[in-house]
Amino acid sequence: MTKAIRAGIVGYGNLGRGVEKAIRQNPDFELRAIFSRRHPNEVAASQGVVHISEVEKYKGEIDVLILCGGSATDLPEQGPELAALFNTVDSFDTHAKIPAYFEEVNAAALQGGNVSVISTGWDPGLFSLNRLLAEAVLPEGKEYTFWGKGVSQGHSDAIRRVAGVKNGVQYTIPVEAAVERVRRGENPELTTREKHLRECYVVAEEGADRAQIERQIKEMPNYFADYDTIVHFISEEELKRDHSAMPHGGTVLRSGVTGENNKQIVEFGLKLDSNPEFTASVLVAYARAAHRLSQDGQKGAKTVFDIPFGLLSQFSPEELRQRLL
Amino acid sequence: MTKAIRAGIVGYGNLGRGVEKAIRQNPDFELRAIFSRRHPNEVAASQGVVHISEVEKYKGEIDVLILCGGSATDLPEQGPELAALFNTVDSFDTHAKIPAYFEEVNAAALQGGNVSVISTGWDPGLFSLNRLLAEAVLPEGKEYTFWGKGVSQGHSDAIRRVAGVKNGVQYTIPVEAAVERVRRGENPELTTREKHLRECYVVAEEGADRAQIERQIKEMPNYFADYDTIVHFISEEELKRDHSAMPHGGTVLRSGVTGENNKQIVEFGLKLDSNPEFTASVLVAYARAAHRLSQDGQKGAKTVFDIPFGLLSQFSPEELRQRLL
Repeated sequence: MTKAIRAGIVGYGNLGRGVEKAIRQNPDFELRAIFSRRHPNEVAASQGVVHISEVEKYKGEIDVLILCGGSATDLPEQGPELAALFNTVDSFDTHAKIPAYFEEVNAAALQGGNVSVISTGWDPGLFSLNRLLAEAVLPEGKEYTFWGKGVSQGHSDAIRRVAGVKNGVQYTIPVEAAVERVRRGENPELTTREKHLRECYVVAEEGADRAQIERQIKEMPNYFADYDTIVHFISEEELKRDHSAMPHGGTVLRSGVTGENNKQIVEFGLKLDSNPEFTASVLVAYARAAHRLSQDGQKGAKTVFDIPFGLLSQFSPEELRQRLL
Repeated sequence: MTKAIRAGIVGYGNLGRGVEKAIRQNPDFELRAIFSRRHPNEVAASQGVVHISEVEKYKGEIDVLILCGGSATDLPEQGPELAALFNTVDSFDTHAKIPAYFEEVNAAALQGGNVSVISTGWDPGLFSLNRLLAEAVLPEGKEYTFWGKGVSQGHSDAIRRVAGVKNGVQYTIPVEAAVERVRRGENPELTTREKHLRECYVVAEEGADRAQIERQIKEMPNYFADYDTIVHFISEEELKRDHSAMPHGGTVLRSGVTGENNKQIVEFGLKLDSNPEFTASVLVAYARAAHRLSQDGQKGAKTVFDIPFGLLSQFSPEELRQRLL
């Protein structure tokens, strides 16, 4: 038996709790500490929580830190800072800022002699891998990504900022007819509206003008104006009871041609009861790879594109070849 | 512009012709030679064909050989022999013999200082990758592979060996109801019969006993006895007209759980008009990786599990991060 991989969790929200559960499913891992910015007494966890200011004391006692903060404000700061001290893995997902984030984390990780896997999870992450694979195999073709059915945090937040709205949840829903056209190899040109629907469950404040709320949501630029949007008004109790789960998923399709116009369709899909728990499970697999790459003497920032799948598995190369190839 | 990757094709059947077409879709490749065991004058190709006995003269002029022979007799001999001389990639698919084949090719490639990627294509290959990925992310779960709808060469050959059969084609067909049960997260235990149907199109010799042929096919051990099998008798003309294409495909599903019994489904699927052309396209992408690994100083046998996806692409890491992550 080789030594367990000693992991630390940074940030104890939905994602951090998901990582804690995922570590329990991976016998080669050991959770050494949970770090939080909150006062340790305020955080209810299965084990002692450590204030983030203490993290440097754990150098040499933790093999890899799993960063569970958000991409808006937490990771841009914590990512480079912690990459200078530890091997790290994160789910940074602000697409346009990934190249700059990569450079910053890379510089810090090189300086600290660590490996940092950035922007993993499922999109970016597993979806990105499938885009790359399908494009490399089918250079002549067209790629489609459909998201959902699932809760979009960004769109739910946008609803909740509308005047008169007490609470709300937004589901992104792929248009099945469009997905089917792609699966049939039609290579359609699809507008934003033709690809996804948006369905909103809204709790209005007492006495609020519902027609006005509905109009404001449907006309909101960037978020809803380009989509067919359905708005339902429900009670706070109904929202809690029926819309507290965090399902998500989606489909990446590539429709390509080879030879004399032979159609070749590659599809990758996820159907997730819990988006944060699945993302957490991906983070743990890439934490294993980060630790192994570091043990192998590698340094710097990596993405899912740089990491062979063999390093994600708890099993040996011999066993994987024998059992899964 | 970096120098083109100079490729050679060994074996000019369906797969070799597919590789020739795939190379045309990849601008960073250049086809240097096609090697065949047949007399070069007997092979109709877009360019001169060279007898396989001349291959050693091409050392230094070819960066990677793409081996397109069969797994039964060609590759067990050619794989190790050519791995000693060139970087190679192949689609060796005799599952039970992969570990031994890996060792043999590895020894030859190490001795020759080359990189050899074995057992790529889609199964083994892309399906294997998805099994590994889904298992690493969802260690608690169950994996299902469904093949088809597609032509199975092995089963078509078995039909043609039955007395009174002139020609025949066999389609492997997944049972859609079973696939749907897996997609719903039911985690069913499925028998061989519950997973796939077998549909045969048979051309009988004149005067042959069709009832006897049908019975012999349906009762054939290993190939048909454990399945629901449908046999159609058709004319040679119908067979040529309707069953000359080589479609295939299939689905790899993993149905797992995280946290408090949250179901998480990962699915990868292929729908291929041309099985050999798709396999050929995968071989070319892995030939690119073999060449790059070799340029990086690596040696020995590799499988799809050892190769980061970034090496499969003609595009730079910066572009891939910016465009696909």
